Order: sequence, then structure tokens, then C-alpha cells
Amino acid sequence: MKAAAPPRGFGIEEYEQRTDNAQRRMARDGVDALLLTTEADIRYFTGFLTAFWQSPTRPWFLVIPSAGKPVAVIPEIGRECMAACWIDDIRTWPAPRFIDDGISLLADLLHVCCLAGGAVGTPMGPESHLRMPLDDYMALRDRLANLTFCDATPVIRDLRMLKSEAEIAKLRHICGLVSDGFANLASIAAVGVVEREIFRRFRIDLLSRGADDVPYLVGGSGPDGPRDIISPPSGRSIAPGDILMMDTGAVFDGYYCDFDRNVGFVEVTDEACRAYDTVYRATEAGLRTARPGATSGDLWAAMAPHLEDAGSGRFGHGLGMQLTEPPSNMKDDATVMQPGMVMTLEPALAFGDGGIMVHEENLVIRDGPPELLTQRASRDIPVLM
Amino acid sequence: MKAAAPPRGFGIEEYEQRTDNAQRRMARDGVDALLLTTEADIRYFTGFLTAFWQSPTRPWFLVIPSAGKPVAVIPEIGRECMAACWIDDIRTWPAPRFIDDGISLLADLLHVCCLAGGAVGTPMGPESHLRMPLDDYMALRDRLANLTFCDATPVIRDLRMLKSEAEIAKLRHICGLVSDGFANLASIAAVGVVEREIFRRFRIDLLSRGADDVPYLVGGSGPDGPRDIISPPSGRSIAPGDILMMDTGAVFDGYYCDFDRNVGFVEVTDEACRAYDTVYRATEAGLRTARPGATSGDLWAAMAPHLEDAGSGRFGHGLGMQLTEPPSNMKDDATVMQPGMVMTLEPALAFGDGGIMVHEENLVIRDGPPELLTQRASRDIPVLM
Repeated sequence: MKAAAPPRGFGIEEYEQRTDNAQRRMARDGVDALLLTTEADIRYFTGFLTAFWQSPTRPWFLVIPSAGKPVAVIPEIGRECMAACWIDDIRTWPAPRFIDDGISLLADLLHVCCLAGGAVGTPMGPESHLRMPLDDYMALRDRLANLTFCDATPVIRDLRMLKSEAEIAKLRHICGLVSDGFANLASIAAVGVVEREIFRRFRIDLLSRGADDVPYLVGGSGPDGPRDIISPPSGRSIAPGDILMMDTGAVFDGYYCDFDRNVGFVEVTDEACRAYDTVYRATEAGLRTARPGATSGDLWAAMAPHLEDAGSGRFGHGLGMQLTEPPSNMKDDATVMQPGMVMTLEPALAFGDGGIMVHEENLVIRDGPPELLTQRASRDIPVLM
Repeated sequence: MKAAAPPRGFGIEEYEQRTDNAQRRMARDGVDALLLTTEADIRYFTGFLTAFWQSPTRPWFLVIPSAGKPVAVIPEIGRECMAACWIDDIRTWPAPRFIDDGISLLADLLHVCCLAGGAVGTPMGPESHLRMPLDDYMALRDRLANLTFCDATPVIRDLRMLKSEAEIAKLRHICGLVSDGFANLASIAAVGVVEREIFRRFRIDLLSRGADDVPYLVGGSGPDGPRDIISPPSGRSIAPGDILMMDTGAVFDGYYCDFDRNVGFVEVTDEACRAYDTVYRATEAGLRTARPGATSGDLWAAMAPHLEDAGSGRFGHGLGMQLTEPPSNMKDDATVMQPGMVMTLEPALAFGDGGIMVHEENLVIRDGPPELLTQRASRDIPVLM
């Protein structure tokens, strides 16, 4: 590890600020209580960090009332872990209890939070899902028939898009670690080595450098790079003339990087070099445009002229507690860049016989030029001998 | 690696069988089309394996009609990966497209699958969630107002609970790898080493042995073991007299192990030794009861007399493509054990000043005694000097 790791967790004032921001927005939007069910949303307001979400068996609930601290309604097994956070009011039940998996507790709480006719907001819009059984959600609504349920996607989206400096420090750290890992790729990847083994070594390398985990690692190899950019590595061996693409989402303290690198072996076709150059220049155009006041659509428009079939393309997105977050660098996304937003630029180009060239960088919108969190990809495609 | 890894993927006949089983059950339950939205459910019927699910941005849909192959309605970015599976009918859209994120495509397909008044089944019950925006689900229902939507949890649950020998081979492999890793713990954990560093080394060790990933690794240490069994490792250093507990969900080809081990350092209190012995004997009682015809409740009842406060306890669960699956070894779970079910036994005991002793083993229900997939925990708590 080159740089010292930033401190883990956040000070209580950060959670107070997030909660205060949510409550101001709730007041503006007429939301009396915010109901959250997903890992990232609950962690954002509590600091509750555990891999236990891998188990789909139990639902977890967090309610943000119009004033005061969030209230956790969670399985008993999570009490100790939640009690170590800043939350005071923790209500538990012995989950799983399929006859009433927290629904009575949750209904009682929401009933107190909202006057008759009040509104419970929960994310229902793009990029959201409700992490609880649908039958239980319907039962909750039946029990609270005097309340309305409304979409609170914008509340969460607008809050979480703007990162604090403490959040950015974690993102900078993981981007730096993985940049160092990519710089070391020559010691890991070579002609004759099986894709799956290269990916395994890379995962181990990133853990050794201080990544907590590498939940996302996809890509592949081929004469014009992989044809499929979301598959796990295969049993294919690297051959001369191949391009290897690795796209990596590693985490530090619950914050993700998301970027890829391309590397050739022995020789690279002129066509692939041109594709690399084109996508590199598209990224440069995106970097020049990534300023406060520009929209996601402007970022798209800066990159699109370099790329074919750009119409419906998504050339990057928000980044933070999840691998991909709003906004999307798409033609129609009018989200305005603000200092503190963390974005990826991810132009892609189809070329040759079914090849795809994708570049990706991670950055922070700042007053003036963006802060690049990733070590910029090399100007020309690196070729390992 | 001691044992050779089993082949990756499954033969097409396995997917045909799963689909056929689903369609028979659908006919019995009056379900005309099964709508699936989660990673595990979609992978079960297709073999679609990708870490891309880490990105919450795009919904993915699989529809199982009353006859014929499943039909995929997925983001364009997944076409190549899905086309490598056995699925022929792949309908894509340029996702994310927030104005119509696959809903028109999905509605058209369901409309053809179901006669007027027909039933679309989707999991709505315990341990399920709908992985798509709630607003989109409501819009889908509005567009298909002449169809009914019903809970299909039992269809999926009953099918996935019974594992094929090919699935069991993957589970046996990952359980064996992690058992070997635990046997090597003395080379990783020692007095003076920080918890987080031990967990990091263990994760690296498991990857080196052939695990594809280690999505779940929790636990901790303390004089009577950890007080919290779901937290990530801390910055605490191991001290003489500590017990370290590590609970591990590693995967091979998309199949999980889920078991823990406890190890003491230098010396262990009599009280902790007694707790270890008690929980060990509870596991033995579970192993003697794990026979075809016994229920999950019987497994609970075999272990409960050994343990305090057992009433609402859940002493193990199903295991497979997810870290935790149905059924639950709980008092009221009447699921009948059948050969081919893969279960964990996970008795737990509170002891001392807030300590918790948890043991866990993974097994296959067989005619006669179960097949233990994990190398049985040692009879007495191992103590590292």
C-alpha cells in the first residue's frame, strides 16, 4: 500500500447531516416517514456494515421520521451490530418469523410517525427495488390503509449523489489501490495463462494491497478483446495477439471503484489500436466536459461523436456505495454535475469482428477540472511481451 | 487443491429437467407463466452467471411459459452472456431506459403466455423479493389488468430445495476447499495479529485453494468469542485467552458453502470449553436426526434440548445457490427432509458474559445417514499456542 488508508466509518456528525438533509427534503416533498429496505440505503443513514445481506432470508427496515434519529426495525441477530452504530431506537424480532416477519413492529412505528392521511415514502423508481417480500409489503399497506405510500426515489437519489469528503477519501483509496494493481498486471498476466487464473491472481493481488473485497471482476480476452463484457473469466488461455480486458469493482469500507483496463499480448492489430485511441479520446472529451453545471447528457454528448451507435449508449454513471449509482451519462439524463459528485466515464466502441473496446475512469466533480481518482489509462494500449 | 474441481456449468438436460419440473408444478398450481427477477432464480433456469448483478441499475426478467424453453427479457448488455446459455428466445432493450425499462417487452410476452384471466406467478412469499422498481411492477399489472398475479414462492422453493448430483458436486467441492482452509488456520491466525488481517489472509488462502470468491466472511474474537456474529472483522488484535470465530460463505461456480469454526489462543476458559462441547453435542444430535422423513422442526427439536433460549432459534437452513435458502431448522417449519436436500446444522448458545458459541456443518440428506460436506469440527476446541 502506497497511501495510508483513510479512517473506517464516519463521525456521528456525518450521519446527523445525512439525516437532516433527508428530513428537509422529506418536508419539501410531503413525506412524513421514509421507509428503507436495501443494504446501501440503510447503511447510508446508519453505518450498518455487514456481509449478512448475502443472506436473502430476513428483511431489514429503517424508518426516518420527520424529526429525530432514524429507527431500526431489524432481525434480533443484527441488534449488536446496529447498536454499535449511532442509532438509539432499535426494535427487533426473532427473524425469520414467517407469520409476521417484522410487519407488526414496522406498522406500529409508521402509524406513530404519520398522522392519518400522512405519507410513507419508499424508493419505487428507477434503479430501486423493495427488499422485502411483496406479500408483506401488501399486508403492510393494508394495515396502514389510512396512510398513503409514495415514491421517495428522488429523496435518496439526490442525497446520495453528492459525496462528502470522507466518502471521497474512501473512494480515492480504493481507486488508488486498484490502479496500483493494474500497474502490476505484467507480473500476473502472460501468454499461456488461463483467464480464470489471471483473474484469481488479480483478486488476490488487490486483497493483498488492502482492498476489503472484490465483489465485481468481469471481462475476458480474445483477438479483438472479449465479445462479452459482463461474463466471468473462462478457461481460455491467453494467446499472442489477444487483448485482455478486466473490469473491477473492489471495495474499501463499503465504497466501490469501478474501472477497467485493456492490455495486449505480443502484438495488437492496427484496428484494435485505433479503437483504443478512439475510446481514449472520447474519455478525454468527457474529462474536459466534467465541470459543475454540465449535465450527464452533456457528458454523453462530449463522448458520443467519437463513438458509433452512441444513441442509446450509457457512457458512465455515478459511483459510491454501489458499483453503479445515478446519474447515467446518457443522452436524456439532465442531471446537473455538482462539486462532490463521483462519476465514471465509460465510453465503449464496437469494432472489428464483434469486439468491444471499453475504457473507464473514476473522478470527482470539483470547481474547475475534475479530480481523477484512477491513475489515467496509458495513452496507447500496453502490450505485454 | 486436494480434489479435482468438478466441471463448470451444467448439461442442457439439467436445465430441461428444471424447466419441466417447474412447468408440471405450474400446471398443478394454475400458474400460466412464471416471472422471475432475481439472480438465483434466473440462473437456476438458464445458467446465466455474472457478477453484473452487483449493479442495481438494470432489471432482468425471465419468463417460464407453460411449455417450451424459458424466455429472457434482459438488457442488451447481457445478450452475449445469455446467448451462451441454452436459452433461444432472448429479447433485449437498451437498458437503462427509464421511460420503459423492459416493461413493454415483458408485458407483450406475458400477454402471449396467458389467456385472458390467466395467472402470472412470481415469488411474493418468505425469503423472496421482487428485483425491479415497484413502480414498474405496478405499471406492468396495470397493463395486464386482464391477468391475475399470484404468489409462486412454493414452485421455486420446492424445486430449488432438491439438489441434483451435479449441484451437490459443486457444493462438496467448495465445502472441501474451505475445510482445508480452516485446517490451515494455524498458519494464518496468531496472538498479536489484527482480526482484519486474519480475515484478509483467510480470504486470500481460500482463493488460492480454488474458491471463485468469498462473498461472506464474518465473525470476530474476544475472551468468550465475539459478541456479534454478523459484523465484519475489526482492528482488534488477538490476545491470549481469546476465541476467534470465522463464518464463511465461499463460492465455486455459483454454489456456496456456509460454515464456521472456532479456535482458541493459548488458553480457553472452562466455561467456553463447556459451551463448545454443548454445541458440538447439539450438532451430533442434529446429524443423527437428519434422515429422510424428518422435518426441519425435528432437526430443531433434536438440537434444542442442548441449548438455552432455543424457542425462536433457527439452527440451520438450506444451502445452495444462496448462502441461506429454505427450509429453516425452526420449531414450526414442517418441511420434510428428502434425499438430495442440502442443509446446514447451526446450533448456537449464549454463554458467559455476552458470548455466543455457534457451530455449523453442511450436509446432504441421503438414504440413511447424511453425507457430511464439511470436514467435521474437532471434538474439542482447537487451541493455538
